[in-house]
Amino acid sequence: MLSEIKEQPIILITNDDSIAAPGIKALAEAVKDLGRVVVVAPDKPQSGMGHAITIGYPLRLHESFLIDGVEAYTCSGTPVDCVKLAVDKILHRKPDICLSGINHGANHSINVIYSGTMSAAMEAAIERIPSAGFSILDYSMEADFSAAKVYARKIAEFMLKADPKQHLLLNINFPILPEGLIKGVKFCRQANAKYEERFLEREDPHKKTYYWLTGDFINFDEGEDTDVWALANDYVSIVPVQFDLTDYKLKKELENNWNL
Amino acid sequence: MLSEIKEQPIILITNDDSIAAPGIKALAEAVKDLGRVVVVAPDKPQSGMGHAITIGYPLRLHESFLIDGVEAYTCSGTPVDCVKLAVDKILHRKPDICLSGINHGANHSINVIYSGTMSAAMEAAIERIPSAGFSILDYSMEADFSAAKVYARKIAEFMLKADPKQHLLLNINFPILPEGLIKGVKFCRQANAKYEERFLEREDPHKKTYYWLTGDFINFDEGEDTDVWALANDYVSIVPVQFDLTDYKLKKELENNWNL
Repeated sequence: MLSEIKEQPIILITNDDSIAAPGIKALAEAVKDLGRVVVVAPDKPQSGMGHAITIGYPLRLHESFLIDGVEAYTCSGTPVDCVKLAVDKILHRKPDICLSGINHGANHSINVIYSGTMSAAMEAAIERIPSAGFSILDYSMEADFSAAKVYARKIAEFMLKADPKQHLLLNINFPILPEGLIKGVKFCRQANAKYEERFLEREDPHKKTYYWLTGDFINFDEGEDTDVWALANDYVSIVPVQFDLTDYKLKKELENNWNL
Repeated sequence: MLSEIKEQPIILITNDDSIAAPGIKALAEAVKDLGRVVVVAPDKPQSGMGHAITIGYPLRLHESFLIDGVEAYTCSGTPVDCVKLAVDKILHRKPDICLSGINHGANHSINVIYSGTMSAAMEAAIERIPSAGFSILDYSMEADFSAAKVYARKIAEFMLKADPKQHLLLNINFPILPEGLIKGVKFCRQANAKYEERFLEREDPHKKTYYWLTGDFINFDEGEDTDVWALANDYVSIVPVQFDLTDYKLKKELENNWNL
């Protein structure tokens, strides 16, 4: 099977939980013999950074260690900065594929918008690099990545064999289950689900108010073709993602009705 | 015309250039007599923050001043944080519409992904608030907002009269032209255009390397229905925007060809 993969492809790995997260180690272990694996990850947690880039400050890169046989670097910026810097200053070319994660915590439904993990994958896809973001529905540092590693490897093999010119951007989430209990993989649409947020109000020692973001996840979507449904029914969910945000239907409606 | 608008609607205004930017003052001036205008803006520049939210730190809100007759607050977080905090802690309800900007600098084409201005508008739209982000192709602090104000007001009036249940999220860009030379408004799709980035490499006084993000804007799109085309041809561009990022075409292709 591997004979179909081109000689020594370059696999760029990044994440948003930082180089110190078990998830990125698991991802590198899963694919390290599929090519030259290079890790460029944030030097501190960057969850919720979305597609942020660093404009007003300069960035730093440092050599680092993750696992044997894998080059690793830390970057002082966001997950998107990691991808940009990796291509321009470390690889000096585009990698063959880019893998982001494995994120500690779900990135299904609307989370795709807020997730640094998915934004890093999207940044690579904007650069026409086949890319995938991986997340597991388990926030804990002791999360069991063994099933996720099996699937991540299989998906990376498919990505390496795909037409490199094809737009390929995947949002992959894993349920908290051992491999034997996972029913398989579902290609899904992004569920219409989101967080209903409330801010917790507290007082600092100087009697000034400050706010903490909190919230509950609410699924408004009854469809059985969504990522939220697939995960709740013991499947790995894969949502193919685009970055043309044009709402073509609304465009037509406004053209017909708004006489500006 | 205004009689069709409901009594005293609430108009939330935010941006990513901070409360101190002339663009947000221009936007508030343009619409201040259309309802109760409330400004909640970042207390420092937040360009390029994309859809980042603040998770690991608490947030602060402070009363501020922008223009007479308009309530104004600063928030210590990102543009998306501003919208979330405004709804939960200042308005205690959803505003009738949310306007973001006027941004100093273009947010056409792929910029929609990186822009804090557009991410704030998208955050409101996720909350089912009709929303628009406004940007002018002029970075300077002395930018002439007079034409932009005329159009922003007209667009806000249409937004206030639209069905509040309809999904409405608009990315609006203004060319650098006086009102008389603007040919009108075009509803557009997001151009396939992006920045080709390079990092400038420098050495600090301690002989350590650091990197500055730089780049050139490249338009790969020859279509005459794009925002980039409209702006280059003296139109105001409006791209209706969605946040279901599912790539339905790719989903079908992968379902047929990837046997995971």
